Amino acid sequence: MGGRNNMDLWYTEKWCKDVGFSVKVREHLCHVKSQYQKIDIFDSAILGKFLTLDGLMVVNEKDAFIYHEMLVHVPMAVNPEAKRALIIGGGEGGTARELLRYPGIEHIDLVEIDAQVVEACKAHLPYTKQVLEDARVNVIISDGAGFASKTPDNSYDLILVDSSFPVGPCEGLLTTSFYADCLRLLTPDGILVNQDESPYFDDTADKMKRSYAKVKKLFPVAAVYQAHIPTYPSGHWLFGMASKKYHPIKDIKAFKWHNIGLDTQYYNTDLHLGAFMLPNYVKKMLEDA
Amino acid sequence: MGGRNNMDLWYTEKWCKDVGFSVKVREHLCHVKSQYQKIDIFDSAILGKFLTLDGLMVVNEKDAFIYHEMLVHVPMAVNPEAKRALIIGGGEGGTARELLRYPGIEHIDLVEIDAQVVEACKAHLPYTKQVLEDARVNVIISDGAGFASKTPDNSYDLILVDSSFPVGPCEGLLTTSFYADCLRLLTPDGILVNQDESPYFDDTADKMKRSYAKVKKLFPVAAVYQAHIPTYPSGHWLFGMASKKYHPIKDIKAFKWHNIGLDTQYYNTDLHLGAFMLPNYVKKMLEDA
Repeated sequence: MGGRNNMDLWYTEKWCKDVGFSVKVREHLCHVKSQYQKIDIFDSAILGKFLTLDGLMVVNEKDAFIYHEMLVHVPMAVNPEAKRALIIGGGEGGTARELLRYPGIEHIDLVEIDAQVVEACKAHLPYTKQVLEDARVNVIISDGAGFASKTPDNSYDLILVDSSFPVGPCEGLLTTSFYADCLRLLTPDGILVNQDESPYFDDTADKMKRSYAKVKKLFPVAAVYQAHIPTYPSGHWLFGMASKKYHPIKDIKAFKWHNIGLDTQYYNTDLHLGAFMLPNYVKKMLEDA
Repeated sequence: MGGRNNMDLWYTEKWCKDVGFSVKVREHLCHVKSQYQKIDIFDSAILGKFLTLDGLMVVNEKDAFIYHEMLVHVPMAVNPEAKRALIIGGGEGGTARELLRYPGIEHIDLVEIDAQVVEACKAHLPYTKQVLEDARVNVIISDGAGFASKTPDNSYDLILVDSSFPVGPCEGLLTTSFYADCLRLLTPDGILVNQDESPYFDDTADKMKRSYAKVKKLFPVAAVYQAHIPTYPSGHWLFGMASKKYHPIKDIKAFKWHNIGLDTQYYNTDLHLGAFMLPNYVKKMLEDA
């Protein structure tokens, strides 16, 4: 019997009750049940290595660049002078890695609730260890909302909410008091970006609307932009961007951003504008939020 | 045992060898093997009724509006005066339905290769019969490339290639001679739009590049635009637009288009611009094509 293999191993994620997204897996590299969530890392031919939390795709080697680039470069092109950043979540390191490409970034506080996410990614993902040990990155294992509530005013030019989904351990990140702390923590030039789920399935669309409604009440400027991320539910992914004064399109510093000289695979300053041009059905959701 | 139901029925489509997209099905309404392909119509809670050809999603009641709107309104906003249109494929009727909303459209030739697609959709989809029996629609059961080769010059203001995927019965639609016929068939104001697959998976990206390379050699103006269509492979869908003189962005007639007064769920004239703002990795594919 040696050499025969009659087994396929498939990872299946329920995008909603009635839709599944499946990826053929080569190896289940890691399964940990932490106090917060189930952490799994798989290897696959199509996506390379991928991390899931409670059975939801977080990053993979094929298209995580889209998520990280769109989270980081959109606000950085509006305020390329940003020096101090707070990342909430993002313990696998991809968002910090993208941000560290800016020579002007002096300090990043990365607040990850789950030490075991950091450990698992350090052990299995190729970049996590190097990013998190960078001299400009300060990793804090703590609840993001609690950390924000105890941090002084004007501490950051940029806050990136790179949490896993606002359920389970991250529910505190969907509250008005958390967003009010973000406003307080930001400098006058400051920008907040949060990943905002998909508008396509009712359940996640509802979370997006709740998040946007709260941010819009607090911040002078609030907008939503989109990207094509095929391994996230529906592939139609939204981000919320809020600021004290900068308009996400009118205040883009395209010339300055180009002068930094970053080579990107997804983001460009034309696409930046296009990303804010939302379909009517999404615009209607935001108007009704 | 009466009343028990231990069965789930799932439709699974292979988006590539190692990725599956599954939809829970209420009922398999129709399965036909025509001389060209397997035709299936399902009913589901999440997508409503959906049509597949050889196991590839063609339309469903949840998001087909995105595909049809983006195929039709993008060229119509650039040339709102279009009167005569040719649809290649599209036997289920959705593209024709969207086009019939323009009072200026006087005549549509709809060339569908497979009579059994038309019959199945008339029997099971709510709109097909009414659309195809509209006085302005002339349904021709024929091979699209053959039809184009025998049609006189300057016959159409708009050609929409709404074929199922350019494999199997539709392979002739991916040839230089077919695109040359399209150029010949179009009036000087004419526009060609073809659905162009996804850039995400290697196999479909290759088809997109081949299609774009051929169109670009023939037409004075050629561009590619994108939409979020969650039930098509990767959800990142491309369309090719080519014309004899009109630029897809600079020549948009937004004011005229708004005056027609169409209520759309996805398309708007801002999104029109944004749809042409492609990610770097897609731009690079087009440059290399």
